[in-house]
Amino acid sequence: MKLASYRRFGNERYRAGVVADQKVWDLAQLLPGAPDSISVLLEDWERWRPQLFELGDEPVWSNRAGGMFLNEVTLGSPIPRPSSFRDFYAFEAHVKTARAKRGLDMIPEWYDFPVFYFSNAAAFSGTEAVIRRPKATQWLDFELEIACVIGKEGIDIPVDRAAEYIAGYAVLNDWSARDLQREEVKVGLGPAKGKDFATSMGPWLVTPEELEDRKLPGPQGNRYDLTMTARVNGIEYSRGNFRDIHYTFAQMIARASADCPLYPGDVIGSGTVGTGCILELGADRYDWLKPGDVVELEVERLGVLRNRICDL
Amino acid sequence: MKLASYRRFGNERYRAGVVADQKVWDLAQLLPGAPDSISVLLEDWERWRPQLFELGDEPVWSNRAGGMFLNEVTLGSPIPRPSSFRDFYAFEAHVKTARAKRGLDMIPEWYDFPVFYFSNAAAFSGTEAVIRRPKATQWLDFELEIACVIGKEGIDIPVDRAAEYIAGYAVLNDWSARDLQREEVKVGLGPAKGKDFATSMGPWLVTPEELEDRKLPGPQGNRYDLTMTARVNGIEYSRGNFRDIHYTFAQMIARASADCPLYPGDVIGSGTVGTGCILELGADRYDWLKPGDVVELEVERLGVLRNRICDL
Repeated sequence: MKLASYRRFGNERYRAGVVADQKVWDLAQLLPGAPDSISVLLEDWERWRPQLFELGDEPVWSNRAGGMFLNEVTLGSPIPRPSSFRDFYAFEAHVKTARAKRGLDMIPEWYDFPVFYFSNAAAFSGTEAVIRRPKATQWLDFELEIACVIGKEGIDIPVDRAAEYIAGYAVLNDWSARDLQREEVKVGLGPAKGKDFATSMGPWLVTPEELEDRKLPGPQGNRYDLTMTARVNGIEYSRGNFRDIHYTFAQMIARASADCPLYPGDVIGSGTVGTGCILELGADRYDWLKPGDVVELEVERLGVLRNRICDL
Repeated sequence: MKLASYRRFGNERYRAGVVADQKVWDLAQLLPGAPDSISVLLEDWERWRPQLFELGDEPVWSNRAGGMFLNEVTLGSPIPRPSSFRDFYAFEAHVKTARAKRGLDMIPEWYDFPVFYFSNAAAFSGTEAVIRRPKATQWLDFELEIACVIGKEGIDIPVDRAAEYIAGYAVLNDWSARDLQREEVKVGLGPAKGKDFATSMGPWLVTPEELEDRKLPGPQGNRYDLTMTARVNGIEYSRGNFRDIHYTFAQMIARASADCPLYPGDVIGSGTVGTGCILELGADRYDWLKPGDVVELEVERLGVLRNRICDL
């Protein structure tokens, strides 16, 4: 099932919708009594999830009246305002290559446990949103990631129970101002200003059932065989696969929840897939992003997250 | 004026209150129509602020019926769930000394601009809350800081307008697991697990008017002549003063809001005052915190924030 946050008019707040067959259905209309926002839906996900699945397969209900064509609505971030945003660093190739570009060796501690930082949960937008380049940056970059959205409160969640806490997945772009980031991390905190201006997520939230046939289970949790690509102005820049992730989301959830509760609506980013940003590809080969550029991040089964850069 | 979040019973949600003369008054009773939560109050702070001040000085209304003695209620974090939490690093002595302890020189870039990291906004508690020591840490520390709470939405806020965006100040304890922090920051992100388990703030939010006679205005915004002390089990560990802060909250607000909106209910931490944590005082002189220890952070005019450590 694909859950979206949509609106028909610019000043409306986003409503929960279900996407099928190029249309979005209003969730509260499809399932009377259901919450009209995905954030509220997730707060009681264990109650609503079975009722949503009882709606049956798409063909059963997707012929009903009431569906709006996707091009008639605006999609926001599936979670318009996550309750928190933790971004991990779980693909080995990205860490290795990004460090090598700066003449640095791999950090041995990276292999000890998955590491994350908190980023700005108040700057999320969806597909087709315009991204403003910060005035102070000349080195604007994208980051091709997968987001995992939490659907149940928990603390000290063991790796082998983590799947129960995952409501779904989405494509994530952790927009990055590399010049700002480079300066601020010298002080030993963050990144913060290098990342706080924008994160886009979308186009919708895909529940794990939709990925079942691509699942690669392992003792440390599930990976998935899903190709991940990034295009800038239609030209492919990046190509990777979710199966190459070093730390699974189960391990990330175990780490994040150690002595610290996770809540429904929390977003966990995977970190950048190998080759999934200009920093790694080399700014000698590719220009930093500039106003007018269109960045499309695509993950098989999860869809295409498309954003255009504008200046302030 | 002192604004608190209080409740009378353990399972109630926190309500907005006004504190005077050892009593707390329910805000919605004191000012009919006012929101019953501080977070909602701050969302429309420019409307409610003048009405609150029209209540007059404490003696006028503090004799009214309805006040509850402070020892009859539980105080939470004045903002029970901040919309975000940015923690800066604005006292020079703390940065210098903490680095010197590790044999490191001062970072020249620290003088270029105020640096912060995002931390966990979902783990706030108030005075008298019990703090659980993470299972994985042996090096539990306090950090004596001041919090500034945002009362108006804004982006690209200039230093000379920043005061308009400040709803008030409170004492802040940025609890730190130094062993976890030391390991994770080697990877170049965070801190995250070193800080995510607890932040305490309180006992209440003090509006800037209460500090007017201690204000030290300057071209980069206001500092305040307010003594800051920390005591562990009644013994003074730390003594500093808010006037020694290198970067003012006005500068921190300008930095945080550059290309990124701030919202009512956002919390900004000052960073630790010089001598304001065990890391800086030296773990050779003082033991790390252990279950049963009571930590009291006091800032003149802002009150005492008192917490006890327990094991999980």
